[in-house]
Amino acid sequence: MANITKKVSWSSRGDESGAAGEETPLLNGSEQSRPLRQSLDYDNIENQLFLEEERRMSFMAFRCLEISRWVICGLIGFLTGLIACFIDIAVEQLAGLKYKLIKENIVKFTEAGGLSISLLLWAALNSFCVMFGAIIVAFFEPIAAGSGIPQIKCFLNGVKIPRVVRLKTLVVKVVGVIFSVVGGLAVGKEGPMIHSGAVLAAGVSQGRSTSLKRDFKIFEYFRRDTEKRDFVSAGAAAGVSAAFGAPVGGVLFSLEEGASFWNQMLTWRIFFASMISTFTLNFFLSIYHNKPGDLSNPGLINFGRFESEAMEYNLYEIPLFIAMGAIGGGLGAFFNFLNYWLTIFRIRYVHRPCLQVMEAMLVAAVTATVAFVMIYFSTDCQPLGPDHTEEYPLQLFCADGEYNSMATTFFNTPERSVRSLFHNPTGTYNALTLGLFTLTYFFLACWTYGLAVSAGVFIPSLLIGAAWGRLCGILLASTTSTASLWTDPGKYALIGAAAQLGGIVRMTLSLTVIMVEATGNVTYGLPIMLVLMTAKIVGDYFQEGLYDLHIKLGSVPFLHWEAPATSHWLTAREVMSSPVTCLNRIEKVGTIVDTLSNTSTNHNGFPVVVQPAKLCGLILRSQLIVLLKHKVFVELARSRLTQRKLQLKDFRDAYPRFPPIQSIHVSQDERECMMDLTEFMNPTPYTVPQDTSLPRVFKLFRALGLRHLVVVDDDNRVVGLVTRKDLARYHVGKHGLEELHLAQT
Amino acid sequence: MANITKKVSWSSRGDESGAAGEETPLLNGSEQSRPLRQSLDYDNIENQLFLEEERRMSFMAFRCLEISRWVICGLIGFLTGLIACFIDIAVEQLAGLKYKLIKENIVKFTEAGGLSISLLLWAALNSFCVMFGAIIVAFFEPIAAGSGIPQIKCFLNGVKIPRVVRLKTLVVKVVGVIFSVVGGLAVGKEGPMIHSGAVLAAGVSQGRSTSLKRDFKIFEYFRRDTEKRDFVSAGAAAGVSAAFGAPVGGVLFSLEEGASFWNQMLTWRIFFASMISTFTLNFFLSIYHNKPGDLSNPGLINFGRFESEAMEYNLYEIPLFIAMGAIGGGLGAFFNFLNYWLTIFRIRYVHRPCLQVMEAMLVAAVTATVAFVMIYFSTDCQPLGPDHTEEYPLQLFCADGEYNSMATTFFNTPERSVRSLFHNPTGTYNALTLGLFTLTYFFLACWTYGLAVSAGVFIPSLLIGAAWGRLCGILLASTTSTASLWTDPGKYALIGAAAQLGGIVRMTLSLTVIMVEATGNVTYGLPIMLVLMTAKIVGDYFQEGLYDLHIKLGSVPFLHWEAPATSHWLTAREVMSSPVTCLNRIEKVGTIVDTLSNTSTNHNGFPVVVQPAKLCGLILRSQLIVLLKHKVFVELARSRLTQRKLQLKDFRDAYPRFPPIQSIHVSQDERECMMDLTEFMNPTPYTVPQDTSLPRVFKLFRALGLRHLVVVDDDNRVVGLVTRKDLARYHVGKHGLEELHLAQT
Repeated sequence: MANITKKVSWSSRGDESGAAGEETPLLNGSEQSRPLRQSLDYDNIENQLFLEEERRMSFMAFRCLEISRWVICGLIGFLTGLIACFIDIAVEQLAGLKYKLIKENIVKFTEAGGLSISLLLWAALNSFCVMFGAIIVAFFEPIAAGSGIPQIKCFLNGVKIPRVVRLKTLVVKVVGVIFSVVGGLAVGKEGPMIHSGAVLAAGVSQGRSTSLKRDFKIFEYFRRDTEKRDFVSAGAAAGVSAAFGAPVGGVLFSLEEGASFWNQMLTWRIFFASMISTFTLNFFLSIYHNKPGDLSNPGLINFGRFESEAMEYNLYEIPLFIAMGAIGGGLGAFFNFLNYWLTIFRIRYVHRPCLQVMEAMLVAAVTATVAFVMIYFSTDCQPLGPDHTEEYPLQLFCADGEYNSMATTFFNTPERSVRSLFHNPTGTYNALTLGLFTLTYFFLACWTYGLAVSAGVFIPSLLIGAAWGRLCGILLASTTSTASLWTDPGKYALIGAAAQLGGIVRMTLSLTVIMVEATGNVTYGLPIMLVLMTAKIVGDYFQEGLYDLHIKLGSVPFLHWEAPATSHWLTAREVMSSPVTCLNRIEKVGTIVDTLSNTSTNHNGFPVVVQPAKLCGLILRSQLIVLLKHKVFVELARSRLTQRKLQLKDFRDAYPRFPPIQSIHVSQDERECMMDLTEFMNPTPYTVPQDTSLPRVFKLFRALGLRHLVVVDDDNRVVGLVTRKDLARYHVGKHGLEELHLAQT
Repeated sequence: MANITKKVSWSSRGDESGAAGEETPLLNGSEQSRPLRQSLDYDNIENQLFLEEERRMSFMAFRCLEISRWVICGLIGFLTGLIACFIDIAVEQLAGLKYKLIKENIVKFTEAGGLSISLLLWAALNSFCVMFGAIIVAFFEPIAAGSGIPQIKCFLNGVKIPRVVRLKTLVVKVVGVIFSVVGGLAVGKEGPMIHSGAVLAAGVSQGRSTSLKRDFKIFEYFRRDTEKRDFVSAGAAAGVSAAFGAPVGGVLFSLEEGASFWNQMLTWRIFFASMISTFTLNFFLSIYHNKPGDLSNPGLINFGRFESEAMEYNLYEIPLFIAMGAIGGGLGAFFNFLNYWLTIFRIRYVHRPCLQVMEAMLVAAVTATVAFVMIYFSTDCQPLGPDHTEEYPLQLFCADGEYNSMATTFFNTPERSVRSLFHNPTGTYNALTLGLFTLTYFFLACWTYGLAVSAGVFIPSLLIGAAWGRLCGILLASTTSTASLWTDPGKYALIGAAAQLGGIVRMTLSLTVIMVEATGNVTYGLPIMLVLMTAKIVGDYFQEGLYDLHIKLGSVPFLHWEAPATSHWLTAREVMSSPVTCLNRIEKVGTIVDTLSNTSTNHNGFPVVVQPAKLCGLILRSQLIVLLKHKVFVELARSRLTQRKLQLKDFRDAYPRFPPIQSIHVSQDERECMMDLTEFMNPTPYTVPQDTSLPRVFKLFRALGLRHLVVVDDDNRVVGLVTRKDLARYHVGKHGLEELHLAQT
């Protein structure tokens, strides 16, 4: 098991920097023992140079920075909206083409017989699309698989996943999601929007692209982890906002997942990015739909208007809602359980790209087949009213003027199916249709999540929930005589959707707000909240949330919100890594090179001491590497007086892909030189005494976004170093506090 | 000026504890030199005893605590909702009675002549109500004056204002607000709800009431500042939620004003309290309105449904909205400017309670007179349609079947007037009516805010804004030929209301969400946000926000979100108070008593050192006082071996009103005894080196909610102490960084 958890696809290949620091080598097949990720570095260039720059800055300079931040956030929002718009239009056009083709084919063969040809056509079209989507993901950028939400959660938490915010990832993600949705998989295009927004944010805010090898020489100040992370929060929020038309939900998502220290200006900028994103999407879609300027239809997925009159709920319905929440929690846990084992199976046996592509194609073909069979054998015919909203009504074996009801759920993009389930009038579906649909779609969606395609789990979850929710509504209406009470099954579809989604992803605050915003109805706030809470409580009893499971499979040093409840008896002394490698303030180059090359000193930060072991600063691996690269040695400085002094710019240019120590050549002579670290170290690192309790250390890490905390004794002598991984190790298991075995701790 | 700012009504009388620590003696007339507030104490009982208790606690105990927290939040929400319901019904009944009486009188005298008698009646009724409201505030609980939002902001920021969360304050606040609204003042009942929720939260969470001398022996664990403050956040959120039917807005309000460290569980509990509060209010109001179970009408103020079709906005309207935002910002700044000088005038000349009551009565009479005159001379008659929504239509001199349009704005509770301005069909008001109304109401509201009555400024601001906003809409419609474009002036009323409110209070994120939730329309998110941003930027250019002005007048050590931008060159060394009084680990009782009695050692926390000056802990004034009170002396412990050991309970029972040092009698013999502080001090206080920059120190304070930070040198020797006040001193003025003169720093 410990062996298994070391391998997981989304964090498995390549490395971001060569730095060997705090690596968690998650191996994937052939590529062995290469460091794979590093924690974000909140203070990475808070060295003397940086402090001096800040001290020199005038009030106007700070104001300019602040304005730049706003401009960047506006840009992030705008671009995220544009991408969402592009995805939406592409999916709609391609899916339209596909469904039209298949529909014509089905109509042709319904009378003549030989519908198996239609099935083949359908399956082939799906497989082809999915193949394309899977190839680019599996062969070019495996990190773009899935929704990207676990990766973004990790990034915002402070764990850097290699290549997660690269331009190439974005391109693969966007193209991939279009093809997987068009390919008819049980996936949504919403999750990937969050990842896309995050990548855009990381790119725009740095003012350069390493992939394109362009440096626009702007926003150089923001080339550090703290700032970048703030912008990525904004990007993720803009993504949520574009996906669901939920700007407030987006802000809360970012805060729930990422924020540690609540900063009002930052939050407001995030909100701005979200607003602009929804607005942009809205505006361009309104032009696309030939209603330019009509801005009242936000989001990629729109749940449609829930009119208050028809959808009122009553006090006595609340227990019902809560019961549905419990069902959702249970089903969600089951979903996660299945997906967990499936993922482990995949890690073991389906780790070669071509196998991954084949699996994806198989799923696509099976999905088409199942859908076809369900539609074929369905006898649920409904009259095709004058105001029908179906885009592609399939008549099949129904009488003229009627259509096959099962086809509205399967023969459609999932977004449209959700809306139909919410809003189609009473009687559109019969109970059997919904039951069968729930059953099949549940397993299809579960199988699909984790494939090497770019795709989200939001919409499938909503769809499953809406189906069984509507089923509940219908059953309730049929069991009670006073039918008027439960007139609208759409209401139950909404609650079911919330319950199922909550049961799978276990988001709470932000999901409530997202649902409220997507329905455009504040009234449902309380029931949705209660449902999501119930779903979370019930679900957590059985199994973790889907994203958390996948994060756990990555054995990432992910810090939760609070220290485990029973960890008060642990102190920094027990938690810290010790002994810790310290450097002298003026240190021999050879020692530094050896320290950095030594794979057992797996830290990214080194306390700097003056004898005897008294702490005077902290220096980072990345800083040392830049220093070595520029050969900032005391002896050389003396001999070449005219040499350009190392500037902040040199650190910024190297950010974020610092070269590995192996690539830096240091001659034998140079090894004897000395390096003066005083100017480059962080002179005032945070410290704690040895007796500080774990919750307190934890709080420091979370609130300040630390990654290293030096532990000192009463005489200010370094006795240890606490890193994120030291903290992430502890969690509450069934038998009280347990130590997690993080890979290579 | 410095002299003036020392006196301000809402923080002027009495004292919470006798502690002389960090006091800011804001004097009011006769009561001299009594300490008045102290900062909240985030680590107040994080001493060894406390740590030991936490270490002993099992996982189940932690879970029980967590459940208690949820129960308390539910209770807070429920009670807040009940109080809101009570206020609403009381106001509606009493105001109904009043308006009916006056209307009958006016109808009687309109034909017969002698309307001056009606005027007298109106003015007398108003003055009488307001007199009652003002008397209880001015004589019994001056802290209950105003909306209470500045006080709650301070409380959440970590500054304790005496008596602000007492039961007596709550009672006065609730009764006071009923009478001031019924008294026809230009006030709202929404602001006070926030304060009420906060008081409830502080009371419920402590499981006892000092006013009622009842201790329910529950929730004893929560008797410390950190926990109390968290619950007060929830209470404030519940208040916002009940006031505006905006649970998400409530959460964001709490976060914007109070949160430092974003804690997911806490946020969720806050959200829960908010939801329950809206729901409770909703539920009981639905019973009151004879529609039991209809839960779709949340909040004390409900802006009514904004139907998407009629209210759509277009891209080209956005610049107009922004322009309105700028107007709102300007008008808001003007409002604040006037109110600032008025407040200073009041502090100087109207500080005696009877004068305050007389002023309030005067304002009430003037308000009635102005309203009457405006209605009397108005010629704006509108037909009384079959579906009119006016509760008390005044015919006056209009033709039969018509009513006086001016009366719908003045002769009504402000909440109803706002709704009329938003929703009455085009042509209900003519431009002159609205212009005159804006003008008079602006000055009336400005005069009213700051009176010794319990009242909020939200609704008057909205009303002023809605009036001029609707005026803008009407003017736009009249200037353009294509009238259809600007059909609905209600849309402009909404934007105007947002602009005006934003211009006055300068809230941003939370206000956007509150407005969105209160209108039940997500579509207006972006314009409202842009408007509020513009209003804030324009307003800030001229003058601070109303609440901030009042906080500044109180010269409170209020910490803003971030350190001033240009303060990077300041280090802990420059900021800290030095020399600092340290105590030895085993200290003579006499020394401790002298230290605490010495008014120049105005700190609430004392570093504990071992020779030579090496830091080994931090102990608080309140802890020392409890120790002295229980005579925990080394010698006594030796002689009386059976003596009960001091327990955590003793600290909790004394919380939060620790006796002043003067009240503790220590005999001359006892002065020679020794006290061992080891067991009671916080053994691992946060420390920083001397060279830490101010922004970094600031961040520690904000993120961890600190109040003392010990500054140490390289050898861990105490060199100084940074307190909140040391940080609050610095702000960015017109000439760069300035030091603020906080009273008696």
